[in-house]
Amino acid sequence: MKKLINDPQDVVAESVEGFGLAHADLVAVHADPLFVARAGGAVSGKVGLVSGGGSGHEPLHAGFVGVGMLDAAVPGAMFTSPVPDAITPAIQAADSGAGVLAIVKNYTGDVLNFETAAELADAEGVTVRTVVVNDDVAVEDSTWTAGRRGVAGTVMVEKIAGAAAERGDDLDAVAAVAEKVVANVRSMGVALTACTVPHAGRPSFDLPDDEMEIGIGIHGEPGRHRVPLQPADAVTEALLTPVVEDLGLSGGEQVLLFVNGMGGTPASELYIVYRKARALLEARGVSVARSLVGSYVTSLEMQGASVTVLRLDEETTALWDAPVHTAALRW
Amino acid sequence: MKKLINDPQDVVAESVEGFGLAHADLVAVHADPLFVARAGGAVSGKVGLVSGGGSGHEPLHAGFVGVGMLDAAVPGAMFTSPVPDAITPAIQAADSGAGVLAIVKNYTGDVLNFETAAELADAEGVTVRTVVVNDDVAVEDSTWTAGRRGVAGTVMVEKIAGAAAERGDDLDAVAAVAEKVVANVRSMGVALTACTVPHAGRPSFDLPDDEMEIGIGIHGEPGRHRVPLQPADAVTEALLTPVVEDLGLSGGEQVLLFVNGMGGTPASELYIVYRKARALLEARGVSVARSLVGSYVTSLEMQGASVTVLRLDEETTALWDAPVHTAALRW
Repeated sequence: MKKLINDPQDVVAESVEGFGLAHADLVAVHADPLFVARAGGAVSGKVGLVSGGGSGHEPLHAGFVGVGMLDAAVPGAMFTSPVPDAITPAIQAADSGAGVLAIVKNYTGDVLNFETAAELADAEGVTVRTVVVNDDVAVEDSTWTAGRRGVAGTVMVEKIAGAAAERGDDLDAVAAVAEKVVANVRSMGVALTACTVPHAGRPSFDLPDDEMEIGIGIHGEPGRHRVPLQPADAVTEALLTPVVEDLGLSGGEQVLLFVNGMGGTPASELYIVYRKARALLEARGVSVARSLVGSYVTSLEMQGASVTVLRLDEETTALWDAPVHTAALRW
Repeated sequence: MKKLINDPQDVVAESVEGFGLAHADLVAVHADPLFVARAGGAVSGKVGLVSGGGSGHEPLHAGFVGVGMLDAAVPGAMFTSPVPDAITPAIQAADSGAGVLAIVKNYTGDVLNFETAAELADAEGVTVRTVVVNDDVAVEDSTWTAGRRGVAGTVMVEKIAGAAAERGDDLDAVAAVAEKVVANVRSMGVALTACTVPHAGRPSFDLPDDEMEIGIGIHGEPGRHRVPLQPADAVTEALLTPVVEDLGLSGGEQVLLFVNGMGGTPASELYIVYRKARALLEARGVSVARSLVGSYVTSLEMQGASVTVLRLDEETTALWDAPVHTAALRW
């Protein structure tokens, strides 16, 4: 195992500590239990946004804490759901009295632990609503999921709901816009290589040198099928087509196109995928009105990429464009 | 070779095309000869900034074209210097009459080709000054370099000189601030794995599973020595110590600390390196006043990182803080 780490048990704590030191203008790290909150605490009168999940997908979620996006993020152990004892204080830290929206990727452990945490916070007087992100069209039910998995579309939910909270929407309205994004965002990914979880010390699955896995999950969960190595244009079509069909996109619609790197993929390859995905959308008469290209929802050092499409309307476009100031997204 | 590419000969052209489509608000791509210019063309009265070099180090340099940084970038073939026939029109595109500063990483081919291009541009009436970046303290003279190599510190030169040009400094003044950054920035890197140049089809060097190379170059040029795998804290000390000593840093000084990923390194590992590098600087009484953590000067999918330290003064701090709007850096 080749990694720039110290004791494998300390990876999450040390990396979040470093993150907090590098971005002290944006975030405050609470060490025990571990969560990352917006610097300066909850914003008076604003709905709080909290997300979290297993570590290893950085910059998700802590990289999205800041103005216009999340108020707190809860990193679990590597590829392991955070525990309610960490989620509950994060929810409390994010609450200014206007309530909290929890944004949860659809994995059984995450959903259960956020549910328990929401009940505990509710008992302390915090109103919590939850939205579950399930954008991965690759498979129904997976290793750690009932229903579709939540993957890169989570970035769109956090950004757009975050902008709604920032402009002063109340909890019901922020939850409604988050649900609108969930209903209109779909993703699918491909892996060229597996990744190695530090405390496991070996790759999480085997993928032969001459194969790739179409429909991979962000923890290496099985996808739709393994195929011999293919050119990027063919892979891109294999990812985009199910996404477009599941969304039921028609000519004349406007979308946000997001090409996400899994962690070990050069930027040049992501732009090659973006180029083809955009051409395929345009050939269907779909207009790419907004774009995001980069490694935002990763699987440690996995090589691969995912394609996410969000159907836009006037409201979600304006909320996407609204200012954001976090470690990983800023405009 | 596992890559999300089509024909290996088309990687640079297709990826720059995708980059241009994704960032059409910021850049315009000129296809033949290939260069990337600021959208809207040269800014009247402003000194133009041009950089370039072999591809494979993205987001360097095209990712830094935009307001407050570069006016044009020239991507060569993979790990291959761009030719004068591409550099000269990029220099001309960047010139509004106030002259052009060329920022060149110290590799023999880059220096020669930029020199030839500057002479050709001069013959067309463009005044060109050149600054050569040579921040890598690992070795004197290397596979493609006489003297020290230019690596991640190039980002600091481009940002700070870009801000000086944006505020209206003349060519001599922009060149002087760029030279000040060059004189005060040092870097050193480590590789855990090699990378594969697409048209070569195999790793550019062999690195055994139980070794890392301290002092690696961004094209895989040999470093100082190979060592058995070590904890991140020990590796960080091995990188930071020569950087600090070469800079002659003293207690009470202020620096910018930049931990750069080589392309295949998870963000979590970069923050572990940052945490230790910061602690080591603080133990010497050096204050980390500004920080940058991310994969900005990469070597395709290489796993590894580099540590860059820039000695700051009031002027360079203010220019670092000045607004920037590019694909890869924005504030």
